[in-house]
Amino acid sequence: MTPQTADRTDIRATNLAAVLRFLRAKAPCSRAAIATGTGLNKATVTSIVGDLIDRRLARETEQTQNHVGRPATLLVLDGSSYAAIGIAVSARGLTAIAYDAAGGQLLRWHRSGPSADATPAKAVAALAALARRAVAAVHSSGRDVLGLTVGVPGLVNREGTVVLAAGLGWRDVELGRDLVRALGRPSFPVLVDNDANLGALAEHRYGPYTGGADLIHLTGDTGVGAGVICDGHPLRGHLGYVGEIGHLRIAPDGPLCGCGRRGCLEAVAGVPAILARLDPAVLPDADPQVGTDQLVRLAEAGDTRTLEILGEVGTMLGRGVSVLANILNPELVMLGGSYAALGRWLLPAIEKELADDTLAPEAGGCQVVTSTFGHDATAIGAVARSLDSLDSGRLPAVSALRS
Amino acid sequence: MTPQTADRTDIRATNLAAVLRFLRAKAPCSRAAIATGTGLNKATVTSIVGDLIDRRLARETEQTQNHVGRPATLLVLDGSSYAAIGIAVSARGLTAIAYDAAGGQLLRWHRSGPSADATPAKAVAALAALARRAVAAVHSSGRDVLGLTVGVPGLVNREGTVVLAAGLGWRDVELGRDLVRALGRPSFPVLVDNDANLGALAEHRYGPYTGGADLIHLTGDTGVGAGVICDGHPLRGHLGYVGEIGHLRIAPDGPLCGCGRRGCLEAVAGVPAILARLDPAVLPDADPQVGTDQLVRLAEAGDTRTLEILGEVGTMLGRGVSVLANILNPELVMLGGSYAALGRWLLPAIEKELADDTLAPEAGGCQVVTSTFGHDATAIGAVARSLDSLDSGRLPAVSALRS
Repeated sequence: MTPQTADRTDIRATNLAAVLRFLRAKAPCSRAAIATGTGLNKATVTSIVGDLIDRRLARETEQTQNHVGRPATLLVLDGSSYAAIGIAVSARGLTAIAYDAAGGQLLRWHRSGPSADATPAKAVAALAALARRAVAAVHSSGRDVLGLTVGVPGLVNREGTVVLAAGLGWRDVELGRDLVRALGRPSFPVLVDNDANLGALAEHRYGPYTGGADLIHLTGDTGVGAGVICDGHPLRGHLGYVGEIGHLRIAPDGPLCGCGRRGCLEAVAGVPAILARLDPAVLPDADPQVGTDQLVRLAEAGDTRTLEILGEVGTMLGRGVSVLANILNPELVMLGGSYAALGRWLLPAIEKELADDTLAPEAGGCQVVTSTFGHDATAIGAVARSLDSLDSGRLPAVSALRS
Repeated sequence: MTPQTADRTDIRATNLAAVLRFLRAKAPCSRAAIATGTGLNKATVTSIVGDLIDRRLARETEQTQNHVGRPATLLVLDGSSYAAIGIAVSARGLTAIAYDAAGGQLLRWHRSGPSADATPAKAVAALAALARRAVAAVHSSGRDVLGLTVGVPGLVNREGTVVLAAGLGWRDVELGRDLVRALGRPSFPVLVDNDANLGALAEHRYGPYTGGADLIHLTGDTGVGAGVICDGHPLRGHLGYVGEIGHLRIAPDGPLCGCGRRGCLEAVAGVPAILARLDPAVLPDADPQVGTDQLVRLAEAGDTRTLEILGEVGTMLGRGVSVLANILNPELVMLGGSYAALGRWLLPAIEKELADDTLAPEAGGCQVVTSTFGHDATAIGAVARSLDSLDSGRLPAVSALRS
């Protein structure tokens, strides 16, 4: 692509995003009103609106304006013809969710496995099978697929390769490439992203604090990770590895971590580490989901050992949160995954550490709350990721239209 | 401001920024070429170009295009009528720098003091006096002042209040408000920002790695701070406190820090902490600048104790850098302030810790280098801050024009 082409594509996307924003705020409205409101010339507006109509993202209505003179055809946005699919991969299994472009949920499926000892190839095959079913379900609802995003608990580079996902036993799995192949090179984009990044997108787009400019979503599942929205932007970093807090050295003389270091946040506050500290006679189930449910019941029953452990874990998590507060000055830190269910017992210690260890007065205005999405945050954020690329002016190919 | 006004102002600024970008890339060019290239309508382009000409940010040239037909008047950008002023406040004194809008340096002054025990009021008075001199010097060069930005080593909120600057002994100093008053409510914007944030802007706009999307500038002067550019954006956070790494708990059983905690990064790797560890008989001068120069000479002479201390300091700094690498995945971390001069002896240990403590392979692609700006980074970044607001479409008031 020559620089000039890149420039023109950028300008087109910027103008398209401006028209979409205007329509979202003011529709129904005429082409002329869009031109006046955005400062774009009429030829540009006509061409962009034509693209939106061709792709069934906008449609003309019968309404006319309440003005003297020739009635104008008015335009409205129309998200109902498209859907985005999000799939979360975790040690607990696969979760697929689809929303239409207006935010209505079309499907939510969970299937357990593939088991932790499955090869990446087997896991990719299971993932592709679930994705194909979701695509078929969206198509049979009469909608086109705008995009598919997959969330993985690990380092995912900008090319969609899972560089490292310790909890899944994956290293250098070219998931994006493999999925595109397994889906027969679909016309919609297939993206792969880190689970915590997607959790933050879910909070930003659909959560109770939606639109918050500075929020962090903490995953608490097999690993511990942070997804970061700062100054209104989801952060990615040089290779896409923002928010890797699982191996911050929180307790230098602490227990050995799976990574070979000592006292990492995951080793002192990860869900498997918490479960491992409880007496196997009290908590026999190795499955983290079942284990977390049992932990909640023990805490609710006032079990002394459980409460003691959760207090210590809260202190360690609080140290991690205060590192984030000092470096990123968030307004909100949201405890996701299993931490959401355990929030009641973790929050007091987290808040104490945060107040003690953050330089700024009142922790720089940082509040810690529990996520309302629990384990669905990754899949919901994966849906949001595919819809976000539409809002930033990248339209689906016309060839994506079936029929 | 009603939402609608805000929308219109935003659209105007976005369009203005698009015209400025187009002119920077393609000038000399005609108004018609700008309309075609940006997709804006001719009335909008004519109005924006009129504003730019009124403010002497663009001018018409005699050139005509090499086309058949009526010759068009061409436009070029003209930064020579404006300058921005940056002033750095530190324990070493005040540094004022001014550049014209095209990046040419107009002045660089340093004055020592006010002393560390001066009241904030006295310091503000000295700062205002220096600012007035700089404004007068810019005016007598025939230029208008586009903006004045002051950099302070401490927490600065979005209103320009210095909430805490331990190294200066300041707390809740309403510096922005006081300076505006002391300068007689000037027509140009007066901004206050954190020194590390400005250091990062200096690197981003004028440094050898200019334009790098993911870079961090570390200050190493009285305190230790990080200014962060991530995904091409300078990060600010909820209240403006991004990058406060000085009090990360790096060595939990380490020495007592001025903040009352133990083992903070500043307590184990801050320049005053380094100087305090050397024998007073070898290094008698309390002034950090003089002390750093002596430290460099001792290290160059191969003094064993000095090399040992610098190795240990490098390890502690490296732990701080690896926290930044895990959380922000930068491509570059630049050692600024006194660390730039000491880089030769600090870098080996920093690089070792970074490799050991970062989860991503090869430290997520992070390189550590020394800044070329040394102690001028804050003032140069302060200049960049005022120029950046022009690029994002906020024009100076026409009333800012003298004569």
